Amino acid sequence: MMTGHVYIATSLDGFIARSDGSLDWLMKYPTDDGANYGFDDFMDSVDGLIMGRGTYEVVLGFGGEWPYKKPVVVLSSSLSQEDVDQTLEGKVRIVQATPKEIVQILSDEGWKRAYIDGGKLIQSFLQEGLIQDMTLTRIPILIGEGIPLFGPLDHDIDLEHIKTESFPSGFVMSKYEVRSGN
Amino acid sequence: MMTGHVYIATSLDGFIARSDGSLDWLMKYPTDDGANYGFDDFMDSVDGLIMGRGTYEVVLGFGGEWPYKKPVVVLSSSLSQEDVDQTLEGKVRIVQATPKEIVQILSDEGWKRAYIDGGKLIQSFLQEGLIQDMTLTRIPILIGEGIPLFGPLDHDIDLEHIKTESFPSGFVMSKYEVRSGN
Repeated sequence: MMTGHVYIATSLDGFIARSDGSLDWLMKYPTDDGANYGFDDFMDSVDGLIMGRGTYEVVLGFGGEWPYKKPVVVLSSSLSQEDVDQTLEGKVRIVQATPKEIVQILSDEGWKRAYIDGGKLIQSFLQEGLIQDMTLTRIPILIGEGIPLFGPLDHDIDLEHIKTESFPSGFVMSKYEVRSGN
Repeated sequence: MMTGHVYIATSLDGFIARSDGSLDWLMKYPTDDGANYGFDDFMDSVDGLIMGRGTYEVVLGFGGEWPYKKPVVVLSSSLSQEDVDQTLEGKVRIVQATPKEIVQILSDEGWKRAYIDGGKLIQSFLQEGLIQDMTLTRIPILIGEGIPLFGPLDHDIDLEHIKTESFPSGFVMSKYEVRSGN
Protein backbone atom coordinates (compact mmCIF):
# COMPACT_ATOMS: atom_id res chain seq x y z
CA MET A 1 0.00 0.00 0.00
CA MET A 2 1.17 3.52 -0.77
CA THR A 3 2.68 5.44 2.15
CA GLY A 4 2.22 9.12 3.04
CA HIS A 5 5.15 11.44 3.74
CA VAL A 6 5.24 14.98 5.10
CA TYR A 7 7.91 17.58 4.42
CA ILE A 8 6.94 20.99 5.73
CA ALA A 9 8.21 24.10 7.49
CA THR A 10 6.54 25.78 10.44
CA SER A 11 7.17 28.84 12.54
CA LEU A 12 8.44 28.00 16.02
CA ASP A 13 4.86 28.46 17.22
CA GLY A 14 3.62 25.82 14.80
CA PHE A 15 2.09 27.68 11.87
CA ILE A 16 2.59 26.72 8.22
CA ALA A 17 1.26 30.07 6.93
CA ARG A 18 -0.37 33.24 8.17
CA SER A 19 -4.16 33.14 8.34
CA ASP A 20 -4.41 34.49 4.78
CA GLY A 21 -1.97 31.84 3.51
CA SER A 22 0.99 34.18 3.19
CA LEU A 23 4.55 32.96 3.65
CA ASP A 24 6.39 36.28 3.85
CA TRP A 25 7.80 35.31 7.28
CA LEU A 26 9.37 32.22 5.67
CA MET A 27 10.43 33.73 2.36
CA LYS A 28 12.49 36.43 4.04
CA TYR A 29 15.22 33.91 4.88
CA PRO A 30 18.05 33.43 2.38
CA THR A 31 17.84 30.11 0.52
CA ASP A 32 21.58 29.73 0.19
CA ASP A 33 22.04 26.74 2.42
CA GLY A 34 23.25 24.66 -0.50
CA ALA A 35 21.45 21.39 -0.11
CA ASN A 36 18.03 23.00 -0.48
CA TYR A 37 17.30 21.43 2.92
CA GLY A 38 16.96 17.99 1.30
CA PHE A 39 13.79 19.00 -0.50
CA ASP A 40 14.98 17.94 -3.97
CA ASP A 41 15.86 14.46 -2.73
CA PHE A 42 12.54 14.22 -0.95
CA MET A 43 10.65 15.28 -4.06
CA ASP A 44 12.58 12.74 -6.14
CA SER A 45 11.48 10.02 -3.71
CA VAL A 46 7.72 10.46 -4.17
CA ASP A 47 5.40 9.49 -7.02
CA GLY A 48 3.35 12.63 -6.60
CA LEU A 49 1.60 15.02 -4.23
CA ILE A 50 -1.77 15.00 -2.53
CA MET A 51 -3.08 18.32 -1.24
CA GLY A 52 -6.37 19.87 -0.20
CA ARG A 53 -8.19 22.65 -1.99
CA GLY A 54 -6.86 25.30 0.39
CA THR A 55 -3.23 24.48 -0.31
CA TYR A 56 -3.92 24.18 -4.05
CA GLU A 57 -5.41 27.66 -4.11
CA VAL A 58 -2.47 29.07 -2.15
CA VAL A 59 -0.06 27.55 -4.70
CA LEU A 60 -2.12 28.95 -7.59
CA GLY A 61 -2.07 32.32 -5.86
CA PHE A 62 1.73 32.43 -6.02
CA GLY A 63 1.31 33.01 -9.78
CA GLY A 64 4.19 32.25 -12.13
CA GLU A 65 4.99 28.78 -13.34
CA TRP A 66 3.37 25.72 -11.80
CA PRO A 67 6.04 24.56 -9.34
CA TYR A 68 5.59 20.78 -9.43
CA LYS A 69 6.94 18.34 -12.01
CA LYS A 70 5.29 15.40 -10.28
CA PRO A 71 1.55 14.76 -10.59
CA VAL A 72 -0.64 16.57 -8.08
CA VAL A 73 -3.90 15.17 -6.76
CA VAL A 74 -6.22 17.75 -5.18
CA LEU A 75 -8.77 16.29 -2.79
CA SER A 76 -11.88 18.45 -3.01
CA SER A 77 -15.61 18.06 -2.86
CA SER A 78 -16.26 21.56 -4.23
CA LEU A 79 -13.90 21.69 -7.23
CA SER A 80 -14.20 19.62 -10.38
CA GLN A 81 -11.75 18.83 -13.17
CA GLU A 82 -13.29 21.60 -15.31
CA ASP A 83 -12.10 24.17 -12.77
CA VAL A 84 -8.49 23.32 -13.58
CA ASP A 85 -6.78 25.66 -16.01
CA GLN A 86 -5.89 24.12 -19.38
CA THR A 87 -2.20 24.74 -18.78
CA LEU A 88 -2.36 22.32 -15.84
CA GLU A 89 -3.92 19.50 -17.83
CA GLY A 90 -2.16 16.25 -17.03
CA LYS A 91 -0.52 17.89 -14.03
CA VAL A 92 -3.42 18.43 -11.64
CA ARG A 93 -6.21 15.99 -10.99
CA ILE A 94 -9.21 16.82 -8.81
CA VAL A 95 -10.56 13.85 -6.88
CA GLN A 96 -13.42 13.66 -4.40
CA ALA A 97 -12.32 10.95 -1.99
CA THR A 98 -11.51 10.29 1.65
CA PRO A 99 -7.86 9.85 2.65
CA LYS A 100 -8.29 6.05 2.77
CA GLU A 101 -10.01 6.01 -0.62
CA ILE A 102 -7.32 8.07 -2.34
CA VAL A 103 -4.58 5.88 -0.87
CA GLN A 104 -6.35 2.85 -2.35
CA ILE A 105 -6.91 4.54 -5.71
CA LEU A 106 -3.30 5.68 -6.10
CA SER A 107 -1.90 2.39 -4.80
CA ASP A 108 -3.89 0.64 -7.53
CA GLU A 109 -2.29 3.01 -10.04
CA GLY A 110 1.16 2.03 -8.81
CA TRP A 111 2.04 4.92 -6.48
CA LYS A 112 4.40 3.83 -3.69
CA ARG A 113 5.00 7.12 -1.87
CA ALA A 114 2.94 10.32 -1.76
CA TYR A 115 3.90 13.77 -0.49
CA ILE A 116 1.00 14.84 1.72
CA ASP A 117 0.81 18.63 1.85
CA GLY A 118 -1.25 21.20 3.74
CA GLY A 119 -2.32 21.41 7.37
CA LYS A 120 -5.83 20.01 7.19
CA LEU A 121 -4.88 17.14 4.90
CA ILE A 122 -1.86 16.21 7.02
CA GLN A 123 -4.11 16.20 10.09
CA SER A 124 -6.68 13.89 8.50
CA PHE A 125 -4.01 11.54 7.13
CA LEU A 126 -2.33 11.41 10.55
CA GLN A 127 -5.63 10.73 12.27
CA GLU A 128 -6.23 7.81 9.87
CA GLY A 129 -2.73 6.36 10.35
CA LEU A 130 -1.74 7.08 6.75
CA ILE A 131 1.47 9.04 7.39
CA GLN A 132 4.71 7.06 7.62
CA ASP A 133 7.11 9.87 8.35
CA MET A 134 7.35 13.64 8.72
CA THR A 135 10.26 15.96 8.08
CA LEU A 136 9.52 19.17 9.99
CA THR A 137 11.63 22.29 9.69
CA ARG A 138 11.32 24.84 12.48
CA ILE A 139 11.85 28.41 11.38
CA PRO A 140 13.25 30.67 14.15
CA ILE A 141 10.33 33.08 14.32
CA LEU A 142 7.09 33.44 16.28
CA ILE A 143 4.19 34.76 14.19
CA GLY A 144 1.47 34.53 16.82
CA GLU A 145 -1.37 33.22 14.67
CA GLY A 146 -2.00 31.51 11.36
CA ILE A 147 -2.80 28.13 9.84
CA PRO A 148 -1.56 25.45 12.25
CA LEU A 149 0.25 22.34 11.09
CA PHE A 150 -1.34 20.15 13.73
CA GLY A 151 -4.86 19.95 15.06
CA PRO A 152 -7.16 17.93 17.31
CA LEU A 153 -6.75 14.16 17.40
CA ASP A 154 -8.91 11.47 18.93
CA HIS A 155 -5.82 9.73 20.36
CA ASP A 156 -2.17 10.47 21.16
CA ILE A 157 0.26 9.68 18.36
CA ASP A 158 3.72 8.49 19.40
CA LEU A 159 6.55 9.35 17.07
CA GLU A 160 10.06 8.03 16.71
CA HIS A 161 12.74 10.68 16.32
CA ILE A 162 15.02 9.66 13.45
CA LYS A 163 17.38 12.61 13.12
CA THR A 164 17.74 16.33 13.57
CA GLU A 165 19.92 18.73 11.66
CA SER A 166 20.35 22.47 12.10
CA PHE A 167 21.47 24.98 9.48
CA PRO A 168 23.31 28.32 9.49
CA SER A 169 19.95 29.95 8.73
CA GLY A 170 18.72 28.82 12.14
CA PHE A 171 16.36 26.31 10.58
CA VAL A 172 16.11 23.06 12.57
CA MET A 173 14.98 20.03 10.58
CA SER A 174 13.76 16.93 12.41
CA LYS A 175 12.55 13.69 10.89
CA TYR A 176 10.03 11.55 12.77
CA GLU A 177 8.47 8.21 11.96
CA VAL A 178 4.94 7.56 13.08
CA ARG A 179 5.03 4.48 15.29
CA SER A 180 2.92 1.66 13.99
CA GLY A 181 -0.12 1.03 16.13
CA ASN A 182 -0.94 4.73 16.30
CA MET B 1 18.02 44.82 34.58
CA MET B 2 17.05 41.22 35.34
CA THR B 3 16.61 38.95 32.33
CA GLY B 4 13.94 36.28 31.77
CA HIS B 5 14.79 32.75 30.70
CA VAL B 6 12.57 29.90 29.57
CA TYR B 7 13.26 26.20 29.93
CA ILE B 8 10.28 24.07 28.99
CA ALA B 9 9.16 20.92 27.22
CA THR B 10 6.33 20.69 24.73
CA SER B 11 4.66 17.97 22.74
CA LEU B 12 5.54 18.12 19.05
CA ASP B 13 2.22 19.89 18.53
CA GLY B 14 3.22 22.62 20.97
CA PHE B 15 1.44 21.83 24.25
CA ILE B 16 3.05 22.10 27.68
CA ALA B 17 0.29 20.08 29.39
CA ARG B 18 -3.08 18.53 28.65
CA SER B 19 -6.06 20.83 29.15
CA ASP B 20 -6.40 19.66 32.77
CA GLY B 21 -2.70 20.31 33.42
CA SER B 22 -1.64 16.67 33.34
CA LEU B 23 1.80 15.63 32.18
CA ASP B 24 1.28 11.87 31.83
CA TRP B 25 2.33 12.04 28.16
CA LEU B 26 5.68 13.54 29.27
CA MET B 27 6.24 11.50 32.42
CA LYS B 28 5.99 8.20 30.55
CA TYR B 29 9.48 8.71 29.09
CA PRO B 30 12.45 7.30 30.98
CA THR B 31 14.54 10.00 32.67
CA ASP B 32 17.80 8.12 32.30
CA ASP B 33 19.50 10.41 29.85
CA GLY B 34 22.19 11.22 32.38
CA ALA B 35 22.61 14.94 32.05
CA ASN B 36 19.05 15.62 33.19
CA TYR B 37 18.75 17.52 29.92
CA GLY B 38 20.77 20.40 31.35
CA PHE B 39 18.00 21.32 33.75
CA ASP B 40 20.18 21.29 36.89
CA ASP B 41 22.68 23.67 35.29
CA PHE B 42 19.86 25.91 34.13
CA MET B 43 18.32 25.98 37.60
CA ASP B 44 21.72 26.79 39.13
CA SER B 45 21.97 29.79 36.79
CA VAL B 46 18.84 31.58 37.95
CA ASP B 47 18.05 33.56 41.09
CA GLY B 48 14.53 32.22 41.23
CA LEU B 49 11.32 31.44 39.37
CA ILE B 50 8.37 33.53 38.30
CA MET B 51 5.16 31.67 37.48
CA GLY B 52 1.46 32.37 37.13
CA ARG B 53 -1.28 31.09 39.39
CA GLY B 54 -2.20 28.29 36.97
CA THR B 55 1.29 26.81 36.95
CA TYR B 56 1.60 27.24 40.72
CA GLU B 57 -1.59 25.29 41.27
CA VAL B 58 -0.45 22.54 38.91
CA VAL B 59 2.81 22.23 40.88
CA LEU B 60 0.89 22.13 44.18
CA GLY B 61 -1.36 19.46 42.65
CA PHE B 62 1.61 17.13 42.15
CA GLY B 63 1.64 16.71 45.94
CA GLY B 64 4.77 15.52 47.69
CA GLU B 65 7.65 17.80 48.52
CA TRP B 66 7.86 21.31 47.10
CA PRO B 67 10.21 20.83 44.15
CA TYR B 68 12.08 24.15 44.10
CA LYS B 69 15.04 25.20 46.22
CA LYS B 70 15.14 28.67 44.67
CA PRO B 71 12.59 31.33 45.60
CA VAL B 72 9.35 31.27 43.65
CA VAL B 73 7.33 34.38 42.86
CA VAL B 74 3.72 33.74 41.88
CA LEU B 75 2.10 36.53 39.90
CA SER B 76 -1.57 36.59 40.79
CA SER B 77 -4.34 39.08 41.28
CA SER B 78 -6.63 36.54 42.96
CA LEU B 79 -4.29 34.90 45.49
CA SER B 80 -2.75 36.58 48.51
CA GLN B 81 0.14 35.63 50.76
CA GLU B 82 -2.30 34.15 53.30
CA ASP B 83 -3.31 31.52 50.74
CA VAL B 84 0.20 30.06 50.86
CA ASP B 85 0.64 27.03 53.09
CA GLN B 86 2.85 27.58 56.13
CA THR B 87 5.30 24.94 54.91
CA LEU B 88 6.05 27.17 51.92
CA GLU B 89 6.81 30.25 53.98
CA GLY B 90 9.93 31.91 52.67
CA LYS B 91 9.75 29.80 49.52
CA VAL B 92 6.70 31.18 47.75
CA ARG B 93 5.80 34.82 47.48
CA ILE B 94 2.53 36.04 45.93
CA VAL B 95 2.83 39.32 44.08
CA GLN B 96 0.24 41.28 42.15
CA ALA B 97 2.25 42.98 39.42
CA THR B 98 2.62 43.25 35.67
CA PRO B 99 5.58 41.55 34.01
CA LYS B 100 7.41 44.89 33.74
CA GLU B 101 6.71 45.73 37.36
CA ILE B 102 7.95 42.40 38.71
CA VAL B 103 11.13 42.66 36.63
CA GLN B 104 11.75 46.07 38.23
CA ILE B 105 10.95 44.82 41.74
CA LEU B 106 13.21 41.78 41.52
CA SER B 107 16.01 43.71 39.81
CA ASP B 108 15.94 46.12 42.72
CA GLU B 109 16.28 43.13 45.04
CA GLY B 110 19.37 42.00 43.15
CA TRP B 111 17.96 39.27 40.88
CA LYS B 112 19.96 38.91 37.66
CA ARG B 113 18.20 36.00 35.96
CA ALA B 114 14.69 34.63 36.43
CA TYR B 115 13.20 31.35 35.21
CA ILE B 116 9.89 32.29 33.63
CA ASP B 117 7.50 29.34 33.76
CA GLY B 118 4.03 28.54 32.43
CA GLY B 119 2.40 29.19 29.06
CA LYS B 120 0.47 32.37 29.80
CA LEU B 121 3.31 34.03 31.70
CA ILE B 122 5.85 33.15 29.03
CA GLN B 123 3.51 34.65 26.42
CA SER B 124 3.13 37.91 28.28
CA PHE B 125 6.85 38.21 29.02
CA LEU B 126 7.63 37.52 25.35
CA GLN B 127 5.09 40.10 24.23
CA GLU B 128 6.76 42.65 26.51
CA GLY B 129 10.29 41.83 25.32
CA LEU B 130 11.30 40.47 28.72
CA ILE B 131 12.60 37.05 27.63
CA GLN B 132 16.28 36.78 26.72
CA ASP B 133 16.43 33.13 25.72
CA MET B 134 14.34 29.97 25.55
CA THR B 135 15.42 26.36 25.79
CA LEU B 136 12.62 24.31 24.26
CA THR B 137 12.53 20.53 24.35
CA ARG B 138 10.30 18.82 21.82
CA ILE B 139 8.83 15.53 23.00
CA PRO B 140 8.14 13.06 20.17
CA ILE B 141 4.39 12.81 20.65
CA LEU B 142 1.27 14.51 19.33
CA ILE B 143 -1.43 14.98 21.98
CA GLY B 144 -3.94 16.94 19.87
CA GLU B 145 -5.03 19.50 22.43
CA GLY B 146 -3.94 21.07 25.70
CA ILE B 147 -2.32 24.18 27.13
CA PRO B 148 -0.23 25.78 24.39
CA LEU B 149 3.23 27.18 25.02
CA PHE B 150 2.77 30.03 22.58
CA GLY B 151 -0.15 32.33 21.88
CA PRO B 152 -1.21 35.44 19.98
CA LEU B 153 1.30 38.28 19.60
CA ASP B 154 0.87 41.78 18.32
CA HIS B 155 4.09 41.50 16.26
CA ASP B 156 6.39 38.81 14.87
CA ILE B 157 9.29 37.86 17.13
CA ASP B 158 12.54 36.90 15.41
CA LEU B 159 14.71 34.41 17.23
CA GLU B 160 18.32 33.41 16.89
CA HIS B 161 18.97 29.68 16.95
CA ILE B 162 21.88 29.01 19.31
CA LYS B 163 22.11 25.22 19.39
CA THR B 164 20.13 22.03 19.09
CA GLU B 165 20.81 18.69 20.70
CA SER B 166 18.91 15.44 20.41
CA PHE B 167 18.80 12.61 22.92
CA PRO B 168 18.32 8.83 22.78
CA SER B 169 14.83 9.41 24.24
CA GLY B 170 13.91 11.23 21.02
CA PHE B 171 13.79 14.55 22.84
CA VAL B 172 15.12 17.45 20.74
CA MET B 173 16.32 20.44 22.72
CA SER B 174 16.85 23.79 20.98
CA LYS B 175 18.06 27.02 22.50
CA TYR B 176 16.96 30.34 20.98
CA GLU B 177 17.82 33.91 21.84
CA VAL B 178 15.20 36.57 21.33
CA ARG B 179 16.67 39.15 18.96
CA SER B 180 16.84 42.58 20.45
CA GLY B 181 14.42 44.99 18.88
CA ASN B 182 11.59 42.47 19.05
